[in-house]
Amino acid sequence: MEKERPLILISNDDGVTAKGLQVLIDIIRPLGDIVVMAPDGGRSGCSCAVTVSQPVHYQKVSEEPGLAVYKCSGMPVDCIKLAMHTVLQRNPDVVVSGINHGDNSSINVHYSGTMGVAIEGCLSGIPSVGFSLNDHHHDAHFEPLRPYIYDIVKNIIEKGLPPQVCLNVNFPNVPIKGVKVCTQAKGYWNQEFDPCPRRFDDKYFWLAGEFVNTDTTNDKNDRKALEDDYVAITPIKVDMTAYEAIEEISSWF
Amino acid sequence: MEKERPLILISNDDGVTAKGLQVLIDIIRPLGDIVVMAPDGGRSGCSCAVTVSQPVHYQKVSEEPGLAVYKCSGMPVDCIKLAMHTVLQRNPDVVVSGINHGDNSSINVHYSGTMGVAIEGCLSGIPSVGFSLNDHHHDAHFEPLRPYIYDIVKNIIEKGLPPQVCLNVNFPNVPIKGVKVCTQAKGYWNQEFDPCPRRFDDKYFWLAGEFVNTDTTNDKNDRKALEDDYVAITPIKVDMTAYEAIEEISSWF
Repeated sequence: MEKERPLILISNDDGVTAKGLQVLIDIIRPLGDIVVMAPDGGRSGCSCAVTVSQPVHYQKVSEEPGLAVYKCSGMPVDCIKLAMHTVLQRNPDVVVSGINHGDNSSINVHYSGTMGVAIEGCLSGIPSVGFSLNDHHHDAHFEPLRPYIYDIVKNIIEKGLPPQVCLNVNFPNVPIKGVKVCTQAKGYWNQEFDPCPRRFDDKYFWLAGEFVNTDTTNDKNDRKALEDDYVAITPIKVDMTAYEAIEEISSWF
Repeated sequence: MEKERPLILISNDDGVTAKGLQVLIDIIRPLGDIVVMAPDGGRSGCSCAVTVSQPVHYQKVSEEPGLAVYKCSGMPVDCIKLAMHTVLQRNPDVVVSGINHGDNSSINVHYSGTMGVAIEGCLSGIPSVGFSLNDHHHDAHFEPLRPYIYDIVKNIIEKGLPPQVCLNVNFPNVPIKGVKVCTQAKGYWNQEFDPCPRRFDDKYFWLAGEFVNTDTTNDKNDRKALEDDYVAITPIKVDMTAYEAIEEISSWF
Protein backbone atom coordinates (compact mmCIF):
# COMPACT_ATOMS: atom_id res chain seq x y z
CA MET A 1 0.00 0.00 0.00
CA GLU A 2 1.29 3.42 -0.89
CA LYS A 3 2.37 5.53 2.00
CA GLU A 4 0.10 8.49 2.74
CA ARG A 5 1.51 11.83 1.66
CA PRO A 6 2.50 14.12 4.55
CA LEU A 7 -0.20 16.59 5.59
CA ILE A 8 1.09 20.15 5.98
CA LEU A 9 -0.89 22.87 7.76
CA ILE A 10 0.16 26.43 6.90
CA SER A 11 -0.73 29.80 8.40
CA ASN A 12 0.84 33.23 8.81
CA ASP A 13 0.18 36.64 10.35
CA ASP A 14 0.37 38.80 7.20
CA GLY A 15 -2.88 37.39 5.87
CA VAL A 16 -4.00 34.98 3.17
CA THR A 17 -2.98 37.24 0.25
CA ALA A 18 0.59 37.95 1.42
CA LYS A 19 3.38 37.20 -1.02
CA GLY A 20 5.38 35.39 1.67
CA LEU A 21 2.57 32.87 2.08
CA GLN A 22 2.26 32.24 -1.67
CA VAL A 23 6.01 31.64 -1.97
CA LEU A 24 5.97 29.31 1.05
CA ILE A 25 3.19 27.21 -0.51
CA ASP A 26 5.12 27.01 -3.77
CA ILE A 27 8.35 25.95 -2.05
CA ILE A 28 7.00 23.15 0.10
CA ARG A 29 4.21 21.84 -2.14
CA PRO A 30 6.33 18.93 -3.39
CA LEU A 31 6.64 17.71 0.22
CA GLY A 32 2.98 16.88 0.87
CA ASP A 33 -0.69 17.80 0.77
CA ILE A 34 -1.23 21.34 1.95
CA VAL A 35 -4.06 22.97 3.87
CA VAL A 36 -3.79 26.72 4.41
CA MET A 37 -5.89 28.47 7.07
CA ALA A 38 -4.70 32.07 7.19
CA PRO A 39 -6.14 35.31 8.60
CA ASP A 40 -8.32 37.31 6.20
CA GLY A 41 -6.03 40.34 6.69
CA GLY A 42 -2.85 41.45 8.42
CA ARG A 43 -2.36 40.45 12.08
CA SER A 44 1.22 41.60 12.65
CA GLY A 45 2.39 41.63 16.26
CA CYS A 46 -0.52 39.58 17.56
CA SER A 47 1.62 37.05 19.40
CA CYS A 48 -0.34 34.00 20.67
CA ALA A 49 -3.58 36.03 20.92
CA VAL A 50 -6.86 34.10 20.70
CA THR A 51 -10.30 35.50 19.87
CA VAL A 52 -12.58 35.10 22.90
CA SER A 53 -15.05 38.01 22.72
CA GLN A 54 -16.63 37.15 19.35
CA PRO A 55 -17.09 34.07 17.17
CA VAL A 56 -14.48 33.22 14.55
CA HIS A 57 -15.51 32.47 10.97
CA TYR A 58 -13.74 30.63 8.16
CA GLN A 59 -14.38 30.29 4.44
CA LYS A 60 -12.86 28.30 1.58
CA VAL A 61 -10.89 30.47 -0.85
CA SER A 62 -9.73 27.84 -3.35
CA GLU A 63 -9.16 24.12 -3.77
CA GLU A 64 -7.17 22.03 -6.20
CA PRO A 65 -5.50 18.60 -5.89
CA GLY A 66 -3.07 18.69 -2.95
CA LEU A 67 -3.87 22.27 -1.94
CA ALA A 68 -6.87 23.73 -0.08
CA VAL A 69 -6.86 27.37 1.02
CA TYR A 70 -9.12 28.85 3.72
CA LYS A 71 -9.29 32.31 5.25
CA CYS A 72 -10.32 33.02 8.83
CA SER A 73 -11.63 36.09 10.66
CA GLY A 74 -9.50 35.35 13.72
CA MET A 75 -5.91 35.42 14.83
CA PRO A 76 -3.12 33.12 13.58
CA VAL A 77 -3.52 30.90 16.67
CA ASP A 78 -7.28 30.71 16.01
CA CYS A 79 -6.44 29.57 12.46
CA ILE A 80 -4.46 26.57 13.72
CA LYS A 81 -7.03 25.61 16.38
CA LEU A 82 -9.95 26.03 13.94
CA ALA A 83 -8.29 24.14 11.08
CA MET A 84 -7.52 21.19 13.36
CA HIS A 85 -11.10 21.24 14.67
CA THR A 86 -12.88 21.61 11.33
CA VAL A 87 -11.27 21.14 7.92
CA LEU A 88 -8.49 18.65 8.76
CA GLN A 89 -9.45 14.98 8.82
CA ARG A 90 -6.36 14.04 10.83
CA ASN A 91 -3.52 15.74 12.69
CA PRO A 92 -1.05 17.43 10.33
CA ASP A 93 2.50 16.08 10.16
CA VAL A 94 3.92 19.57 10.37
CA VAL A 95 2.69 23.13 11.00
CA VAL A 96 4.50 25.78 8.94
CA SER A 97 4.17 29.55 9.39
CA GLY A 98 5.21 32.49 7.22
CA ILE A 99 7.10 33.54 5.34
CA ASN A 100 6.80 36.65 7.49
CA HIS A 101 7.59 40.02 5.95
CA GLY A 102 9.93 41.13 8.75
CA ASP A 103 12.37 39.74 11.29
CA ASN A 104 11.19 37.71 14.31
CA SER A 105 14.51 36.92 15.94
CA SER A 106 15.48 37.56 19.56
CA ILE A 107 12.75 38.74 21.97
CA ASN A 108 10.44 39.37 19.00
CA VAL A 109 9.47 35.72 19.32
CA HIS A 110 7.16 36.96 22.11
CA TYR A 111 5.32 39.52 19.93
CA SER A 112 5.28 37.57 16.68
CA GLY A 113 2.05 36.19 15.23
CA THR A 114 4.19 34.09 12.90
CA MET A 115 5.73 32.39 15.91
CA GLY A 116 2.29 32.29 17.56
CA VAL A 117 1.38 29.78 14.83
CA ALA A 118 4.47 27.66 15.48
CA ILE A 119 3.99 27.79 19.27
CA GLU A 120 0.34 26.75 18.88
CA GLY A 121 1.31 23.85 16.62
CA CYS A 122 3.95 22.80 19.13
CA LEU A 123 1.49 23.01 22.06
CA SER A 124 -0.77 20.71 20.02
CA GLY A 125 2.04 18.16 19.73
CA ILE A 126 2.79 18.84 16.05
CA PRO A 127 6.35 19.56 14.83
CA SER A 128 6.21 23.25 13.93
CA VAL A 129 8.31 25.99 12.39
CA GLY A 130 8.00 29.71 11.64
CA PHE A 131 9.89 31.39 8.78
CA SER A 132 10.63 35.12 8.65
CA LEU A 133 12.62 37.33 6.28
CA ASN A 134 14.34 40.46 7.56
CA ASP A 135 12.58 42.67 4.96
CA HIS A 136 9.21 44.38 5.51
CA HIS A 137 8.49 45.18 1.86
CA HIS A 138 5.39 43.66 0.27
CA ASP A 139 7.45 42.51 -2.70
CA ALA A 140 10.43 41.26 -0.71
CA HIS A 141 12.71 38.79 -2.52
CA PHE A 142 11.89 35.37 -1.14
CA GLU A 143 13.47 33.22 -3.88
CA PRO A 144 16.93 32.89 -2.24
CA LEU A 145 15.20 31.25 0.75
CA ARG A 146 13.85 28.36 -1.34
CA PRO A 147 16.50 25.64 -0.80
CA TYR A 148 16.74 26.38 2.94
CA ILE A 149 13.00 26.26 3.58
CA TYR A 150 12.61 23.11 1.52
CA ASP A 151 15.41 21.36 3.43
CA ILE A 152 14.24 22.46 6.87
CA VAL A 153 10.63 21.35 6.33
CA LYS A 154 11.82 18.07 4.77
CA ASN A 155 14.05 17.44 7.78
CA ILE A 156 11.19 18.17 10.18
CA ILE A 157 8.85 15.78 8.34
CA GLU A 158 11.47 13.01 8.24
CA LYS A 159 13.11 13.43 11.65
CA GLY A 160 10.53 15.27 13.76
CA LEU A 161 11.45 17.72 16.51
CA PRO A 162 12.02 17.15 20.22
CA PRO A 163 8.78 17.33 22.27
CA GLN A 164 7.74 20.89 23.23
CA VAL A 165 10.28 22.42 20.85
CA CYS A 166 9.54 24.39 17.67
CA LEU A 167 11.83 26.35 15.34
CA ASN A 168 12.12 30.10 14.81
CA VAL A 169 13.88 30.54 11.45
CA ASN A 170 14.98 34.03 10.38
CA PHE A 171 16.60 34.94 7.05
CA PRO A 172 18.86 37.89 6.25
CA ASN A 173 17.82 39.97 3.22
CA VAL A 174 21.25 39.71 1.64
CA PRO A 175 23.14 36.90 -0.08
CA ILE A 176 23.06 34.03 2.42
CA LYS A 177 26.36 32.63 3.69
CA GLY A 178 24.95 29.52 5.40
CA VAL A 179 22.97 28.30 8.40
CA LYS A 180 23.57 28.74 12.13
CA VAL A 181 21.60 27.11 14.94
CA CYS A 182 21.33 29.86 17.54
CA THR A 183 20.19 31.06 20.94
CA GLN A 184 17.53 33.76 21.39
CA ALA A 185 19.48 37.03 21.56
CA LYS A 186 19.09 39.20 24.65
CA GLY A 187 18.12 42.76 23.86
CA TYR A 188 15.47 45.43 24.09
CA TRP A 189 13.55 48.04 22.08
CA ASN A 190 14.27 51.70 22.80
CA GLN A 191 12.51 54.99 21.91
CA GLU A 192 9.43 52.96 21.25
CA PHE A 193 6.87 55.57 20.18
CA ASP A 194 6.45 58.29 17.56
CA PRO A 195 3.99 61.03 18.57
CA CYS A 196 1.09 61.57 16.16
CA PRO A 197 -1.04 64.29 17.78
CA ARG A 198 -4.66 64.54 16.66
CA ARG A 199 -5.94 68.12 16.74
CA PHE A 200 -5.58 69.24 20.38
CA ASP A 201 -4.76 65.83 21.82
CA ASP A 202 -1.05 64.97 22.02
CA LYS A 203 -1.61 61.56 23.63
CA TYR A 204 -1.57 59.58 20.36
CA PHE A 205 1.49 57.50 19.49
CA TRP A 206 2.71 55.05 16.85
CA LEU A 207 4.70 52.10 18.14
CA ALA A 208 8.24 52.52 16.76
CA GLY A 209 11.77 52.23 18.05
CA GLU A 210 14.99 50.42 17.42
CA PHE A 211 16.14 47.04 18.64
CA VAL A 212 19.33 46.96 20.69
CA ASN A 213 21.22 43.66 20.88
CA THR A 214 22.80 43.45 24.36
CA ASP A 215 23.98 39.88 23.87
CA THR A 216 27.54 40.95 23.15
CA THR A 217 29.35 38.13 24.96
CA ASN A 218 27.52 35.25 23.25
CA ASP A 219 28.19 35.20 19.51
CA LYS A 220 25.84 32.25 18.98
CA ASN A 221 22.75 34.48 19.27
CA ASP A 222 20.26 34.77 16.43
CA ARG A 223 20.67 38.54 15.89
CA LYS A 224 24.41 38.12 15.41
CA ALA A 225 23.86 35.32 12.90
CA LEU A 226 21.51 37.58 10.88
CA GLU A 227 23.96 40.47 11.06
CA ASP A 228 26.64 38.12 9.70
CA ASP A 229 24.35 37.12 6.76
CA TYR A 230 23.51 33.64 8.06
CA VAL A 231 20.11 31.95 8.35
CA ALA A 232 19.35 31.93 12.11
CA ILE A 233 17.54 28.83 13.38
CA THR A 234 16.53 29.21 17.03
CA PRO A 235 14.96 26.19 18.74
CA ILE A 236 12.18 27.51 21.01
CA LYS A 237 10.66 25.66 23.94
CA VAL A 238 7.06 26.16 25.03
CA ASP A 239 7.76 25.13 28.62
CA MET A 240 8.68 28.56 30.01
CA THR A 241 9.39 27.35 33.56
CA ALA A 242 12.52 28.95 35.03
CA TYR A 243 13.57 25.73 36.79
CA GLU A 244 16.75 27.31 38.14
CA ALA A 245 14.67 29.95 40.00
CA ILE A 246 12.37 27.55 41.87
CA GLU A 247 14.67 27.12 44.86
CA GLU A 248 15.25 30.85 45.33
CA ILE A 249 11.55 31.74 45.15
CA SER A 250 10.68 28.83 47.45
CA SER A 251 12.95 30.31 50.13
CA TRP A 252 10.53 33.25 50.45
CA PHE A 253 7.86 31.08 52.09
CA MET B 1 17.64 62.01 53.09
CA GLU B 2 14.48 59.96 53.07
CA LYS B 3 14.51 56.94 50.79
CA GLU B 4 12.28 57.26 47.74
CA ARG B 5 9.09 55.23 47.90
CA PRO B 6 8.99 52.27 45.50
CA LEU B 7 7.32 53.02 42.16
CA ILE B 8 4.78 50.37 41.13
CA LEU B 9 3.43 50.12 37.56
CA ILE B 10 0.16 48.19 37.27
CA SER B 11 -1.80 46.90 34.28
CA ASN B 12 -4.18 44.06 33.43
CA ASP B 13 -6.12 42.55 30.54
CA ASP B 14 -9.66 42.85 31.91
CA GLY B 15 -9.61 46.64 31.57
CA VAL B 16 -9.35 49.67 33.82
CA THR B 17 -12.75 49.17 35.48
CA ALA B 18 -12.29 45.49 36.42
CA LYS B 19 -12.82 44.59 40.06
CA GLY B 20 -9.60 42.54 40.11
CA LEU B 21 -7.60 45.67 39.26
CA GLN B 22 -9.29 47.76 41.96
CA VAL B 23 -8.60 45.10 44.60
CA LEU B 24 -4.97 44.80 43.46
CA ILE B 25 -4.46 48.56 43.84
CA ASP B 26 -6.00 48.46 47.31
CA ILE B 27 -3.82 45.55 48.44
CA ILE B 28 -0.42 46.87 47.34
CA ARG B 29 -0.98 50.60 47.84
CA PRO B 30 0.88 50.61 51.19
CA LEU B 31 3.98 49.31 49.38
CA GLY B 32 4.66 52.32 47.15
CA ASP B 33 3.50 54.98 44.72
CA ILE B 34 1.26 53.47 42.07
CA VAL B 35 0.78 54.29 38.40
CA VAL B 36 -1.92 52.32 36.57
CA MET B 37 -2.01 52.17 32.76
CA ALA B 38 -4.72 49.70 31.84
CA PRO B 39 -6.67 48.95 28.66
CA ASP B 40 -9.92 50.92 28.21
CA GLY B 41 -11.85 47.63 27.92
CA GLY B 42 -11.41 43.87 28.08
CA ARG B 43 -8.44 42.33 26.24
CA SER B 44 -8.68 38.72 27.42
CA GLY B 45 -6.50 36.21 25.58
CA CYS B 46 -4.37 38.85 23.87
CA SER B 47 -1.03 37.37 24.90
CA CYS B 48 1.96 39.65 24.18
CA ALA B 49 0.14 41.35 21.29
CA VAL B 50 1.23 44.86 20.35
CA THR B 51 -0.71 47.44 18.33
CA VAL B 52 1.13 48.15 15.09
CA SER B 53 -1.58 49.04 12.55
CA GLN B 54 -3.00 52.09 14.33
CA PRO B 55 -1.81 54.65 16.88
CA VAL B 56 -2.38 54.02 20.58
CA HIS B 57 -3.94 56.66 22.78
CA TYR B 58 -3.90 57.18 26.55
CA GLN B 59 -5.84 59.42 28.91
CA LYS B 60 -5.73 60.22 32.63
CA VAL B 61 -8.70 58.77 34.53
CA SER B 62 -7.90 59.95 38.06
CA GLU B 63 -5.09 61.19 40.26
CA GLU B 64 -4.60 61.44 44.01
CA PRO B 65 -1.47 61.37 46.21
CA GLY B 66 0.38 58.10 45.54
CA LEU B 67 -2.00 56.89 42.83
CA ALA B 68 -2.41 57.93 39.18
CA VAL B 69 -4.71 55.98 36.88
CA TYR B 70 -4.58 56.07 33.07
CA LYS B 71 -6.50 54.14 30.44
CA CYS B 72 -5.13 53.17 27.04
CA SER B 73 -6.67 52.20 23.71
CA GLY B 74 -4.08 49.48 23.15
CA MET B 75 -3.13 46.06 24.41
CA PRO B 76 -1.71 45.27 27.86
CA VAL B 77 1.83 45.18 26.44
CA ASP B 78 1.23 48.58 24.79
CA CYS B 79 0.19 49.88 28.24
CA ILE B 80 3.54 48.95 29.77
CA LYS B 81 5.58 50.29 26.86
CA LEU B 82 3.55 53.51 26.68
CA ALA B 83 3.59 54.15 30.44
CA MET B 84 7.36 53.76 30.55
CA HIS B 85 7.74 56.06 27.55
CA THR B 86 5.33 58.79 28.68
CA VAL B 87 3.88 59.14 32.20
CA LEU B 88 6.66 57.53 34.28
CA GLN B 89 9.56 59.78 35.25
CA ARG B 90 11.81 56.81 36.01
CA ASN B 91 11.80 53.01 35.64
CA PRO B 92 9.31 51.35 38.00
CA ASP B 93 10.65 49.10 40.77
CA VAL B 94 8.10 46.45 39.97
CA VAL B 95 5.45 45.73 37.29
CA VAL B 96 2.31 44.07 38.64
CA SER B 97 -0.52 42.62 36.53
CA GLY B 98 -4.04 41.51 37.41
CA ILE B 99 -5.81 40.37 39.35
CA ASN B 100 -7.10 38.42 36.36
CA HIS B 101 -10.63 37.06 36.43
CA GLY B 102 -9.67 33.52 35.39
CA ASP B 103 -6.84 31.02 35.62
CA ASN B 104 -3.55 31.52 33.71
CA SER B 105 -1.64 28.45 34.82
CA SER B 106 0.05 25.87 32.60
CA ILE B 107 0.20 26.57 28.85
CA ASN B 108 -2.25 29.46 29.29
CA VAL B 109 0.78 31.59 30.07
CA HIS B 110 1.16 31.76 26.27
CA TYR B 111 -2.35 33.15 25.62
CA SER B 112 -2.67 35.35 28.69
CA GLY B 113 -2.73 39.14 28.41
CA THR B 114 -2.16 39.26 32.17
CA MET B 115 1.12 37.42 31.70
CA GLY B 116 1.81 39.54 28.59
CA VAL B 117 2.16 42.45 31.03
CA ALA B 118 4.58 40.53 33.26
CA ILE B 119 6.62 39.26 30.31
CA GLU B 120 6.86 42.81 28.90
CA GLY B 121 7.99 44.15 32.28
CA CYS B 122 10.57 41.38 32.49
CA LEU B 123 11.85 42.03 28.95
CA SER B 124 12.30 45.66 30.04
CA GLY B 125 14.48 44.54 32.95
CA ILE B 126 11.87 45.25 35.66
CA PRO B 127 10.95 42.59 38.27
CA SER B 128 7.41 41.59 37.23
CA VAL B 129 4.51 39.44 38.37
CA GLY B 130 1.04 38.50 37.12
CA PHE B 131 -1.79 37.50 39.50
CA SER B 132 -4.82 35.44 38.42
CA LEU B 133 -7.77 33.94 40.29
CA ASN B 134 -9.38 30.72 39.05
CA ASP B 135 -12.85 32.35 38.91
CA HIS B 136 -14.24 34.14 35.83
CA HIS B 137 -17.09 35.95 37.64
CA HIS B 138 -17.11 39.75 37.58
CA ASP B 139 -17.70 39.82 41.34
CA ALA B 140 -15.20 37.07 42.22
CA HIS B 141 -14.03 37.01 45.85
CA PHE B 142 -10.55 38.47 45.85
CA GLU B 143 -10.23 39.24 49.59
CA PRO B 144 -8.67 35.86 50.59
CA LEU B 145 -5.79 36.66 48.20
CA ARG B 146 -4.80 39.82 50.11
CA PRO B 147 -2.01 38.55 52.41
CA TYR B 148 -0.43 36.46 49.65
CA ILE B 149 -0.34 39.25 47.09
CA TYR B 150 0.98 41.75 49.63
CA ASP B 151 3.78 39.36 50.68
CA ILE B 152 4.76 38.40 47.13
CA VAL B 153 5.00 42.02 45.90
CA LYS B 154 6.86 43.03 49.09
CA ASN B 155 9.34 40.20 48.53
CA ILE B 156 9.85 41.20 44.90
CA ILE B 157 10.49 44.84 45.85
CA GLU B 158 12.93 43.90 48.61
CA LYS B 159 14.73 40.94 47.00
CA GLY B 160 14.19 41.39 43.26
CA LEU B 161 13.92 38.48 40.84
CA PRO B 162 16.58 36.66 38.82
CA PRO B 163 17.30 38.34 35.44
CA GLN B 164 14.88 37.33 32.65
CA VAL B 165 12.50 35.68 35.12
CA CYS B 166 8.99 36.83 36.08
CA LEU B 167 6.30 35.19 38.19
CA ASN B 168 2.98 33.66 37.13
CA VAL B 169 0.85 33.47 40.30
CA ASN B 170 -2.49 31.64 40.20
CA PHE B 171 -4.98 31.37 43.06
CA PRO B 172 -7.60 28.66 43.68
CA ASN B 173 -11.15 29.96 44.29
CA VAL B 174 -11.51 27.94 47.49
CA PRO B 175 -10.03 28.31 51.01
CA ILE B 176 -6.27 28.47 50.43
CA LYS B 177 -4.07 25.82 52.05
CA GLY B 178 -0.71 27.49 51.36
CA VAL B 179 1.82 28.32 48.65
CA LYS B 180 3.68 26.06 46.22
CA VAL B 181 6.42 27.13 43.80
CA CYS B 182 5.68 25.12 40.67
CA THR B 183 6.56 24.11 37.15
CA GLN B 184 4.37 24.98 34.14
CA ALA B 185 2.02 21.99 33.75
CA LYS B 186 2.02 20.12 30.45
CA GLY B 187 -1.43 19.79 28.93
CA TYR B 188 -3.72 20.78 26.11
CA TRP B 189 -7.20 22.11 25.29
CA ASN B 190 -9.67 19.75 23.63
CA GLN B 191 -13.04 20.22 21.85
CA GLU B 192 -12.08 23.80 21.39
CA PHE B 193 -15.06 25.28 19.51
CA ASP B 194 -18.82 25.62 19.95
CA PRO B 195 -20.70 26.07 16.65
CA CYS B 196 -22.81 29.23 16.41
CA PRO B 197 -24.30 29.17 12.89
CA ARG B 198 -25.52 32.46 11.45
CA ARG B 199 -28.49 32.03 9.16
CA PHE B 200 -27.25 29.73 6.33
CA ASP B 201 -23.58 29.83 7.26
CA ASP B 202 -22.37 27.08 9.66
CA LYS B 203 -18.76 28.23 9.66
CA TYR B 204 -19.04 30.39 12.79
CA PHE B 205 -17.56 29.13 16.06
CA TRP B 206 -16.98 30.26 19.64
CA LEU B 207 -13.64 29.30 21.16
CA ALA B 208 -14.45 26.86 23.98
CA GLY B 209 -13.10 23.56 25.27
CA GLU B 210 -11.67 21.98 28.36
CA PHE B 211 -8.11 21.89 29.60
CA VAL B 212 -6.54 18.46 30.05
CA ASN B 213 -3.57 18.19 32.41
CA THR B 214 -1.22 15.52 30.99
CA ASP B 215 1.50 16.22 33.54
CA THR B 216 0.57 13.22 35.67
CA THR B 217 4.08 12.14 36.64
CA ASN B 218 5.24 15.50 38.01
CA ASP B 219 3.19 16.58 41.03
CA LYS B 220 5.04 19.90 41.29
CA ASN B 221 3.10 21.37 38.33
CA ASP B 222 0.95 24.47 38.74
CA ARG B 223 -2.36 22.85 37.75
CA LYS B 224 -1.91 20.19 40.42
CA ALA B 225 -1.17 22.85 43.06
CA LEU B 226 -4.39 24.69 42.14
CA GLU B 227 -6.40 21.45 42.20
CA ASP B 228 -5.00 20.81 45.69
CA ASP B 229 -6.12 24.32 46.83
CA TYR B 230 -2.64 25.88 46.92
CA VAL B 231 -1.45 29.18 45.47
CA ALA B 232 0.66 28.19 42.43
CA ILE B 233 3.73 30.38 41.81
CA THR B 234 5.44 29.49 38.53
CA PRO B 235 8.71 31.26 37.70
CA ILE B 236 8.67 32.01 33.97
CA LYS B 237 11.72 32.74 31.81
CA VAL B 238 11.58 35.00 28.78
CA ASP B 239 14.57 33.30 27.12
CA MET B 240 12.68 30.58 25.24
CA THR B 241 15.79 28.98 23.69
CA ALA B 242 15.66 25.18 23.80
CA TYR B 243 19.38 24.89 24.55
CA GLU B 244 19.20 21.10 24.78
CA ALA B 245 17.94 20.92 21.16
CA ILE B 246 20.73 22.96 19.55
CA GLU B 247 23.05 19.99 18.99
CA GLU B 248 20.35 17.82 17.41
CA ILE B 249 19.16 20.53 15.02
CA SER B 250 22.76 21.43 14.15
CA SER B 251 23.33 17.85 12.98
CA TRP B 252 20.89 18.48 10.10
CA PHE B 253 23.33 20.82 8.33
